[in-house]
Amino acid sequence: MDDQHYDLPALHPFWSYLENKLGPFTASSRLACLNDIKPAPALLLPKDLSDLKQIFGKDGVSIDPVKRLMHAMGKSYVDLLRIRRGWVDRTPDAVVFPVQEAQIQTLMEMAGDRGWTLIPFGGGTSVVGGAEPFSNSNPVITLDLVRMNRILHIDRTSHTALVQCGIRGPQLEAKLNAAGFTLGHFPQSFEFSTLGGWIATRSAGQNSTKYGKIEQMVVSLRMVTPNGILDLPDVPAHAAGPSLLQCFIGSEGTLGVISQAVVRLHPLPRHRVFASYLFSDFTEGISAARALLQSGMRPAVLRLSDPEETAMAYWLSKSRHPSIKDHLAKLYLKIRALDLQRNAILILIFEESRRKMSPTGLPMRSILKAGGAYLGSKPAWRWAQTRFRHPYLRDDLIDRDVMVDSLETAAPWHKLPALYTAVRKALMDAIRTTAPSALVLTHLSHAYLDGASLYFTFLARQQQGEELQQWQRVKAAGTEAIIDQGGALSHHHGIGHVHRPWMRRYLTPEGMAVLSHLKDKLDPRNIMNPGKLFGE
Amino acid sequence: MDDQHYDLPALHPFWSYLENKLGPFTASSRLACLNDIKPAPALLLPKDLSDLKQIFGKDGVSIDPVKRLMHAMGKSYVDLLRIRRGWVDRTPDAVVFPVQEAQIQTLMEMAGDRGWTLIPFGGGTSVVGGAEPFSNSNPVITLDLVRMNRILHIDRTSHTALVQCGIRGPQLEAKLNAAGFTLGHFPQSFEFSTLGGWIATRSAGQNSTKYGKIEQMVVSLRMVTPNGILDLPDVPAHAAGPSLLQCFIGSEGTLGVISQAVVRLHPLPRHRVFASYLFSDFTEGISAARALLQSGMRPAVLRLSDPEETAMAYWLSKSRHPSIKDHLAKLYLKIRALDLQRNAILILIFEESRRKMSPTGLPMRSILKAGGAYLGSKPAWRWAQTRFRHPYLRDDLIDRDVMVDSLETAAPWHKLPALYTAVRKALMDAIRTTAPSALVLTHLSHAYLDGASLYFTFLARQQQGEELQQWQRVKAAGTEAIIDQGGALSHHHGIGHVHRPWMRRYLTPEGMAVLSHLKDKLDPRNIMNPGKLFGE
Repeated sequence: MDDQHYDLPALHPFWSYLENKLGPFTASSRLACLNDIKPAPALLLPKDLSDLKQIFGKDGVSIDPVKRLMHAMGKSYVDLLRIRRGWVDRTPDAVVFPVQEAQIQTLMEMAGDRGWTLIPFGGGTSVVGGAEPFSNSNPVITLDLVRMNRILHIDRTSHTALVQCGIRGPQLEAKLNAAGFTLGHFPQSFEFSTLGGWIATRSAGQNSTKYGKIEQMVVSLRMVTPNGILDLPDVPAHAAGPSLLQCFIGSEGTLGVISQAVVRLHPLPRHRVFASYLFSDFTEGISAARALLQSGMRPAVLRLSDPEETAMAYWLSKSRHPSIKDHLAKLYLKIRALDLQRNAILILIFEESRRKMSPTGLPMRSILKAGGAYLGSKPAWRWAQTRFRHPYLRDDLIDRDVMVDSLETAAPWHKLPALYTAVRKALMDAIRTTAPSALVLTHLSHAYLDGASLYFTFLARQQQGEELQQWQRVKAAGTEAIIDQGGALSHHHGIGHVHRPWMRRYLTPEGMAVLSHLKDKLDPRNIMNPGKLFGE
Repeated sequence: MDDQHYDLPALHPFWSYLENKLGPFTASSRLACLNDIKPAPALLLPKDLSDLKQIFGKDGVSIDPVKRLMHAMGKSYVDLLRIRRGWVDRTPDAVVFPVQEAQIQTLMEMAGDRGWTLIPFGGGTSVVGGAEPFSNSNPVITLDLVRMNRILHIDRTSHTALVQCGIRGPQLEAKLNAAGFTLGHFPQSFEFSTLGGWIATRSAGQNSTKYGKIEQMVVSLRMVTPNGILDLPDVPAHAAGPSLLQCFIGSEGTLGVISQAVVRLHPLPRHRVFASYLFSDFTEGISAARALLQSGMRPAVLRLSDPEETAMAYWLSKSRHPSIKDHLAKLYLKIRALDLQRNAILILIFEESRRKMSPTGLPMRSILKAGGAYLGSKPAWRWAQTRFRHPYLRDDLIDRDVMVDSLETAAPWHKLPALYTAVRKALMDAIRTTAPSALVLTHLSHAYLDGASLYFTFLARQQQGEELQQWQRVKAAGTEAIIDQGGALSHHHGIGHVHRPWMRRYLTPEGMAVLSHLKDKLDPRNIMNPGKLFGE
């Protein structure tokens, strides 16, 4: 799938709304061209290169500068900024494209002997620097798993599939859909990210409230480590000691390369029900979301935006020529004393195999009782149509010299209101030391019986000449606040190198020591993705 | 809660049914009295004992022979046999009763310095020798956690509770119920077993099809290890590396003592629906159970008995004075060409917070289509009334010199029919080398989207003088067949020392090496429950 652009014309009302909030834009003229960025010469000797070609074939090895550049970073704000400014000081020295486990094993032996660093690479959509090379002295080889992308078997009885881990979201879903199934995993990176990447980072999809995070979807996996291949039993559940499966899920390429996995499938849903509600504030919306989950309902998507994000969505979707229907909707909200620019919108999407529920049915009344006004199906439906397009808006924003990034966490329900307030305040305060004004948007998603995830997006004008320091300051302030309030260091972005400084505090030194010990065992020479997840 | 007896009079038709199957009973006269079994003198020095009393208080240490005996074994067939015959060669040298973590830490330091073995002990209901002392040279101290039994906090917003791990099932449920909640965890050992024991062994309750296994119920835990206290973050989900939580769940006391945990609660169900169906054979019933799960329905209890177990249940429940209703039921089955002594019964119990389903509703028709005859609610209701009494029947059987034990596993749906046939055959063949005839009863329970658990109970006349060898031969044959057929080495009993010989094969040598490494880190001097889970 090709790169896309967010389709938002320059004169759209959204831009004036944003300029009004953040101050006038400057159009950056400092855009580097990919071909102008010259990575340092590859550190590999001619002998190394020919040995790599021996393993992977001529087509399976690349030292092309653009290819190396494309594997040097992910898709974070900092990555998008760096690629525009040409700030790339390290790329992998070669990119290899394995087609089978034996090649990975041979490469690992070679890497151990020659002091190379190996980085597994899926879709390249990490926003925490998960696949970024660091070492400046050791040669770095990135393993792009794109060629290990086959579905090996679909089991129509057990509703599972055995799949190679380099497969991307759309490929996987298309083939499963053709067989009548879905995995139900749709992260925002869906178009590019891979099954292996999802597993390695404990990814969550937008439909996780019904289908769970990736760690609930994986039945078993195979992982090639420098210490041998680990092949876990393919059983629905067990009582045979600690879960090795859950040790390897989330290992972020630091223990080995996840080569294939058995995943649970669901029959394609036959019915989708879209519903939207407006609440007078975020806290009321949180209570309603909680009541919904704890009543036993499982919408596939549950997404509650705070007033700032609701207003932003309003301006993004605002038509320059409102229809009569739009005017009527406005009147309805006015009568109920609600305002799309000041209240909190909740969107729900139910996916069911049979038509057993309606959004106006009995259980949903508990939400209405909690102060929500029904807005119809359209806002939820429209969100679903554009769900994978939102990240592309970042390009337009960065091109206007806007800093835009996000933080996410998860916490028990009772901690969410205070966490929301504290993280917002921390982000706003940190931004205001570096920019005239700040915008922080928040939504709640990925809801559980006992809690939910909060996702914060912050925007401000870039501090020219100090862009990275500015971002670092804001990111640190938000992350500190998350941990102070008892939130998860990450709910679905992962650790990479960006969150690493907080790992010891979050997991306690004792917890980190256990993880490090695991790493020592499986990767005793520390060749796998060093500088990620572990250490300070 | 006190020990009970299964209320089955000597003249009940069940006994003649069983004698007919297994041959005439002998009434064993070789019953040892607890007070007659004299454990070897405690290996502790007077100084050791006074140091223990220093830590735990006078009341917190016992070297009483009966108390030591009660902590020397679990509740397996072999345990029940050994206690009757007085075959107890090793008991712990002392039993201590901690009330706080600091005491456990001090004890661990002392144990490391003095070469003691420590065994955490919950309800003492292991059927795999999980809490049994082995070492004959090192002093063995058993930590009975019964005094750490408080609910520290119930969070009515997040639907979680912080609970000390020595609490037993009935205590825990009574207090949660009073607050309007349930944990939903009802293993057959419920009356005695503890939260810590459930977590340490990856226990599954009879309602697991709706509420999940214990590993799905635990949000976070604290574990005291010889290497420090591990205190995991209390978040609903995370993407911060491998799951340490799932490393410690299932650790069977070999890594440390689980002291407290945060668990997820559910509102007490307001409605229970009981339903029973009869299928012409077990395979048809398996297909129906699968269709039910994969249609999205989640009964709390789903239990499908094969014809042998259905017949056994029929004889157990058979009244000596059948009513008119019983005659009518018999007639109905006859018309449908079904027979409670030759077909497979499925019982379902739904627990819902609202009245949204009925067992005769649309989704259930898929089951009926698959050949099931509706038997009404009574068989399911009666099973629920007597669910915790079944294990007591073992005492009556063993007193009649019957060998009775069970094996359990889990596998993907597509493997279940072959696994059922192979394990049954392996058990029957092994039994027939040691006894005139065999009875193997099977049920399917703990159903998942992708598979289910099978539970095998085998009965035969004891081979006098060779009771343990006979059992060992049958157990080994069944376990080999389970692994050959791709089943889990255990789904909910755990490994202990009984399943240990198969761990390397089941988890592969590479997998075992990772687990052993974890053990080396947390318990470098191997003081925690040695001889369980790890090693050959």
